[in-house]
Amino acid sequence: MSNIKGNGAVALLKALHAGGAQICFANPGTTELTLVDALAAVPGIRPVLCLFEGVCTGAADGYVRVSGAAPLTLLHLGPGFANGIANLHNARRAGSGIINLIGDHARWHLPYDAPLTSDIESLAAPVSVEVIRLHDADAIAPEATRALAAAAAPAAGPVTMILPADIMDAEVAAGPDPVTAPPSRRAVDAARIVVAATVTERGTGTILLLGGDALAERGQRAAAAIALKIGGRVLMEPYPAIVPLGGDLPPIERQAYFPDDVMQQMGSADVLLVGARPPISYFGYAGYPSQLVPDDRLFCLTTPEEDGVAALESLAVRLGAAGHAASANPSKPEKPAPAALLSPDGIVSCLIERLPEEAIISLEGSTLGGPWLRNARHARRHRVMTNTGGAIGQGLPCALGAALAAPGARVIALQSDGSGHYTPQALWTMAREKLPVTIILAANHRYGILQTELDRAAAPLEDPVIASLTRLDNPRADWTALAAGYGVPAVRATTVAEFDAALERALAMDEPFLIQAELP
Amino acid sequence: MSNIKGNGAVALLKALHAGGAQICFANPGTTELTLVDALAAVPGIRPVLCLFEGVCTGAADGYVRVSGAAPLTLLHLGPGFANGIANLHNARRAGSGIINLIGDHARWHLPYDAPLTSDIESLAAPVSVEVIRLHDADAIAPEATRALAAAAAPAAGPVTMILPADIMDAEVAAGPDPVTAPPSRRAVDAARIVVAATVTERGTGTILLLGGDALAERGQRAAAAIALKIGGRVLMEPYPAIVPLGGDLPPIERQAYFPDDVMQQMGSADVLLVGARPPISYFGYAGYPSQLVPDDRLFCLTTPEEDGVAALESLAVRLGAAGHAASANPSKPEKPAPAALLSPDGIVSCLIERLPEEAIISLEGSTLGGPWLRNARHARRHRVMTNTGGAIGQGLPCALGAALAAPGARVIALQSDGSGHYTPQALWTMAREKLPVTIILAANHRYGILQTELDRAAAPLEDPVIASLTRLDNPRADWTALAAGYGVPAVRATTVAEFDAALERALAMDEPFLIQAELP
Repeated sequence: MSNIKGNGAVALLKALHAGGAQICFANPGTTELTLVDALAAVPGIRPVLCLFEGVCTGAADGYVRVSGAAPLTLLHLGPGFANGIANLHNARRAGSGIINLIGDHARWHLPYDAPLTSDIESLAAPVSVEVIRLHDADAIAPEATRALAAAAAPAAGPVTMILPADIMDAEVAAGPDPVTAPPSRRAVDAARIVVAATVTERGTGTILLLGGDALAERGQRAAAAIALKIGGRVLMEPYPAIVPLGGDLPPIERQAYFPDDVMQQMGSADVLLVGARPPISYFGYAGYPSQLVPDDRLFCLTTPEEDGVAALESLAVRLGAAGHAASANPSKPEKPAPAALLSPDGIVSCLIERLPEEAIISLEGSTLGGPWLRNARHARRHRVMTNTGGAIGQGLPCALGAALAAPGARVIALQSDGSGHYTPQALWTMAREKLPVTIILAANHRYGILQTELDRAAAPLEDPVIASLTRLDNPRADWTALAAGYGVPAVRATTVAEFDAALERALAMDEPFLIQAELP
Repeated sequence: MSNIKGNGAVALLKALHAGGAQICFANPGTTELTLVDALAAVPGIRPVLCLFEGVCTGAADGYVRVSGAAPLTLLHLGPGFANGIANLHNARRAGSGIINLIGDHARWHLPYDAPLTSDIESLAAPVSVEVIRLHDADAIAPEATRALAAAAAPAAGPVTMILPADIMDAEVAAGPDPVTAPPSRRAVDAARIVVAATVTERGTGTILLLGGDALAERGQRAAAAIALKIGGRVLMEPYPAIVPLGGDLPPIERQAYFPDDVMQQMGSADVLLVGARPPISYFGYAGYPSQLVPDDRLFCLTTPEEDGVAALESLAVRLGAAGHAASANPSKPEKPAPAALLSPDGIVSCLIERLPEEAIISLEGSTLGGPWLRNARHARRHRVMTNTGGAIGQGLPCALGAALAAPGARVIALQSDGSGHYTPQALWTMAREKLPVTIILAANHRYGILQTELDRAAAPLEDPVIASLTRLDNPRADWTALAAGYGVPAVRATTVAEFDAALERALAMDEPFLIQAELP
């Protein structure tokens, strides 16, 4: 920015706002200052400052998962964008429509290879469904429309706009507001329903594997009714973007993680995909196939882009599957004694009791992720977001974005310490925006998943080098101090009673609060 | 990793170690576990765990700037690598030879598009001088040799190796150690010296603009002698990778930042580039040229890849420039009264007095960067690293890497708070490795450079939206708490006396210590 005399940036933001954008997660630099100035001039787009770009992109992802409305991010050139890539990777896997705005050097300055110049397109392509560079001011309105449409497509992903500073500074005539059709999922044709019905009649105890949109409440209910009718089972994909659970929803099993577990779980059943991808191994393990259900037992009712809910309801009608049993409401897991040392089960049992209705949980890490998803049915109705792409550092930013998308809802971050260390700066924005986020920080001071993998491979965990690369206990991070540093009050809990008291306190607060849950 | 039965990873690390690699800044994941296991098997490569990949890459950059020896990083697939891109951008601008090792899925697993799959090449290309993907186990030794050579080339940059897990797991025969010629800079021919001598005779008060290698002690001394002889001046590039300053070195002026300041500084003098790039504007500003010295006054003695020191010494001989005056040793800036509120000048004057001989300073941010570089001549002999590429979050990691490269040396991080927030996790590794790093954290709780730019453009700094995107005072981060959270003791200083006492204490410690210097 050099003069802020034009209004290219204003025209862009007005078009994006007219198309639905209401929030902008920002970490601006000099090339974005005209856009900062424009945010002051365009009412209706709430600017939310983050201290690190990975917080911006993870928060945007959480925001769109909860609200369905495309948020903006504002990021500084290639290097600033690069810091947001990891969470955009997850957002792309989640199908989250986010519009990234990246300021770039003025077009006439770009050839001089100033220090911050880089190949932004090359950085953006792997995590964007569209990369749009503005080449002149006349393109502002049509390209905004294109970005909005791409971000609104079902199961789409991030759209990245590269905005040269001179175009943002340019004097432009106001264009018409973008015409954006409401996004809709493609309905599948009747033949697909007939095929699916035939599959269920093969008598293999068909598994309905639900993912994406199909995991909405109506989808889950229709799937449960079908499973009851055909003697099948309902599973959810292992890492849903967002899934409602608990309350009177039917219980739903989660696809396992390790290939041997998945193969055992799937048995010899046919698998009908409804918005889910075929079951594959998270990593490649010698001796196991990548695809864990063979092609001849794998059938597709809907792809992630199609209307899974409508297809499930059609299939239910065709099969005469009229309803499902109320949740079996099996007895809740036993709560450990108050004086017991804290464990994942202890945390989960306390949270089952106290989780408020319509809470949103941001899950990151296997320490609490597995235990929660096995027990979520016992809690009041809530929604869970998981790490869709495996890029860690998602949990805290996603919780932040969710809280901004659902004012009044309680947000809980069930966060492992190892992954929490990638984006702790999210705590600062939670404090700044006074968001009711309760962070349950599972502090086992190690990379548990790496130890598990090494142990499966019979590697010596106690070898000094291996230990030095998998243990985080020298020094042990003090998350209560980190939280305080960012303005978030916090306590440490080592017993079930301490944790439960801290949880009660946290849930009574209108602001963020962190509980460092010490685990073995 | 699935079996760790082969030794592809061992062969790779042995080859890299034989070629000089002695340290590996690591943040591994599952696809890197065979490499973790191999680090345990290959003595001589020190593993250093970092909590975030940007710390790995920034530390690697600091390490190579100080030691000249190529370090390794170990990063997890595309998303883990992506978190390291910002500091690799700076490393590329610094010409820092770093070898990034990225684990990838097994080749047979890659087509299944597992959650963590991404286009690593597209992410790596913008910040790598070479991107090498291993396609079979036989390529391990030759590709290691190629990576070592590329990283050792003068003014090179990061090399990125993409290592499929099945190749790391493979059984391979040990190859011969890589044959790597010691890197050497190309000498310029005599004609170039003659031209340069002619330029100095034009009588414009030629400016010798030194960058990169030419900023070594011998280069600075030869340049000062030439300037004395011809009535010219010596400047350094605005963001050197590393530059010795202070002690009995001749004073050296730094190229300014804003285009108007640079144009005034350069005046009508001819500019002779010695390892420096032509003076260009950091950003494009309407009304100012991008290149701030016109072509007809711009001459090149050496490019960054060439031997600038030898060329300067040849030019000095040709001109009969036999020596330079001892440093003028002008009186040091006046130290503010002990009770005075702390200011950048107060910090600088305390540090001038106390800076130990052969200290290394990692500078990030303009709050202390400008004041220090204007006054460094008054301090004892030391080296300064600056942010070469403008990607922020470099300062703390670079200090960490420098401390590992120069055991026994005192490292000082002169760190602005805004940029410190991108990679605070570096503090944890400093504590873990017990490194004598003193962090002077300039806490003005705002993005000062953005306010300066907005002010120059006459934007309303007090507008609520603009203020919300440029001020960090709600809440004010407590860096003493953040440091404590990562295991680094810290104090806050608000007056000159408090700061000076804290600095004395910090410099007496063998471990890291952070001083939160509160500034207006």
